Amino acid sequence: MKLISDPKKFTAMAAKAKQLKKSIGFVPTMGALHAGHFSLVKRARRENDIVIVSIFVNPTQFGPGEDLKKYPRCLKKDADSCRKLGVDFIFLPDKDNMYPKGYSTFVNVEVLSGLLCGLRRPGHFRGVATVVAKLLNIVQPDTLYLGQKDAQQAVIISRMVKDLNFPVKVKVMPIVRQKDGLALSSRNAYLNEKERSSALVLSKALRLAEAMVSCGQRNAGRIISRMRQLIENNKQAKIDYIAIVDQEELREVKKIKPGSLIALAVTIGKNRLIDNTVIDYN
Amino acid sequence: MKLISDPKKFTAMAAKAKQLKKSIGFVPTMGALHAGHFSLVKRARRENDIVIVSIFVNPTQFGPGEDLKKYPRCLKKDADSCRKLGVDFIFLPDKDNMYPKGYSTFVNVEVLSGLLCGLRRPGHFRGVATVVAKLLNIVQPDTLYLGQKDAQQAVIISRMVKDLNFPVKVKVMPIVRQKDGLALSSRNAYLNEKERSSALVLSKALRLAEAMVSCGQRNAGRIISRMRQLIENNKQAKIDYIAIVDQEELREVKKIKPGSLIALAVTIGKNRLIDNTVIDYN
Repeated sequence: MKLISDPKKFTAMAAKAKQLKKSIGFVPTMGALHAGHFSLVKRARRENDIVIVSIFVNPTQFGPGEDLKKYPRCLKKDADSCRKLGVDFIFLPDKDNMYPKGYSTFVNVEVLSGLLCGLRRPGHFRGVATVVAKLLNIVQPDTLYLGQKDAQQAVIISRMVKDLNFPVKVKVMPIVRQKDGLALSSRNAYLNEKERSSALVLSKALRLAEAMVSCGQRNAGRIISRMRQLIENNKQAKIDYIAIVDQEELREVKKIKPGSLIALAVTIGKNRLIDNTVIDYN
Repeated sequence: MKLISDPKKFTAMAAKAKQLKKSIGFVPTMGALHAGHFSLVKRARRENDIVIVSIFVNPTQFGPGEDLKKYPRCLKKDADSCRKLGVDFIFLPDKDNMYPKGYSTFVNVEVLSGLLCGLRRPGHFRGVATVVAKLLNIVQPDTLYLGQKDAQQAVIISRMVKDLNFPVKVKVMPIVRQKDGLALSSRNAYLNEKERSSALVLSKALRLAEAMVSCGQRNAGRIISRMRQLIENNKQAKIDYIAIVDQEELREVKKIKPGSLIALAVTIGKNRLIDNTVIDYN
């Protein structure tokens, strides 16, 4: 496994791989890797000749009051995990070679970026789309692996890839959860014991919604209202949003259908957590 | 020579060429090709295994009151010219496969896009950057050939390529002029005889500026003021801007240096024309 920081070196390496007809699978991350990331890497490993992981805490996707500085960084542990999983290259740029002086180009996926998490985090998805566009050009992958945990991010990146004709296939892999239901997230490291316990309201609310749907409930408003009750019972939890939307346009739906996305963001203490589920019945 | 309209077919073709280690030279155009375009194609032909020309009148770079509908279209003539010059592929998409329903991603090169022509044409350079990003992903060229005639466009596209790490080299080729000095432009077709004659004030003003510089004048304000006088002597001409800027940031300079860009936009009748020169002395 090689670690490379220089974008130009990385692109030259990728171009060689293309000429040798090697397929490239790519997992972009901000590090602090957990089993959610590992599931993407394992899938990429099964499906490609070359597996590339990028680790870059991207400043342009953090807002002014957000956790850019304290975002967990543990490169050595991450590199060990990648090595064990058979990753070929880690792309490890620094801020200054990703955003040198005079940097001024941004990619924006309009409308979608302003909904759900975008309401609370203006500019976040512009930063995400921009860095992923850069990474796709640097890494030149055949397949890009994303996690369903960041559902809106997956929708926005898929839309960007389609709109800007990036020659890459996007695969979105299921959320990985701890045994008690908590969706894995690098930001779970911020939670103290009590918050960790309160954080279970997110997945519990989603399980409640799924149970209602499997009992025949299709009214989005009623489901949201029961989820809201469940979460508001927890004094530490503060709802940012609960939304039931279609997966393509992220527009609110009144009636649940197979493929509807139930997504929520809840603040536990100072930690804003997100989770979601895609409704599947027939 | 092949004409291809489907972006996916085009990308598949380009991917094959890459695997065969063929170099691709790319000239993006809106058609109505003239000797300015031909100079790019000839250079691309000399330097690459495969030469690709795109012809697409890109709607996202036209403002509401602009000439999208009447922009000259003459595909048959253009295709003949390309064939004679040894072009291998013409990429000829239509609006609906470039911007299908639900299209929502835009690339913006901030600051630079709001200066000079951007003041009069808000959104223009966002449209240009977006379509070129799409074309680069579809065509996958090694080298992109642009004309210096659209100086600001060349600066913005070069900046986008650098910022977003597109794996392509950008070459900007000199302005091609008619014998009397008029810079070639597809929009010259709009000019009647009298306007055609008045349009010479642009190049005359630039030649005046060059003469002043070669006589030792370095004061940008004085040069602009003399250019302004020359143009205002023509009743048909209405100055949009005359600017002397550095080529990287397009910021106004007070003192001329080698590499300074003198750019102007002048409306003749209903036709907004642009021209420029890069100062070169030592």
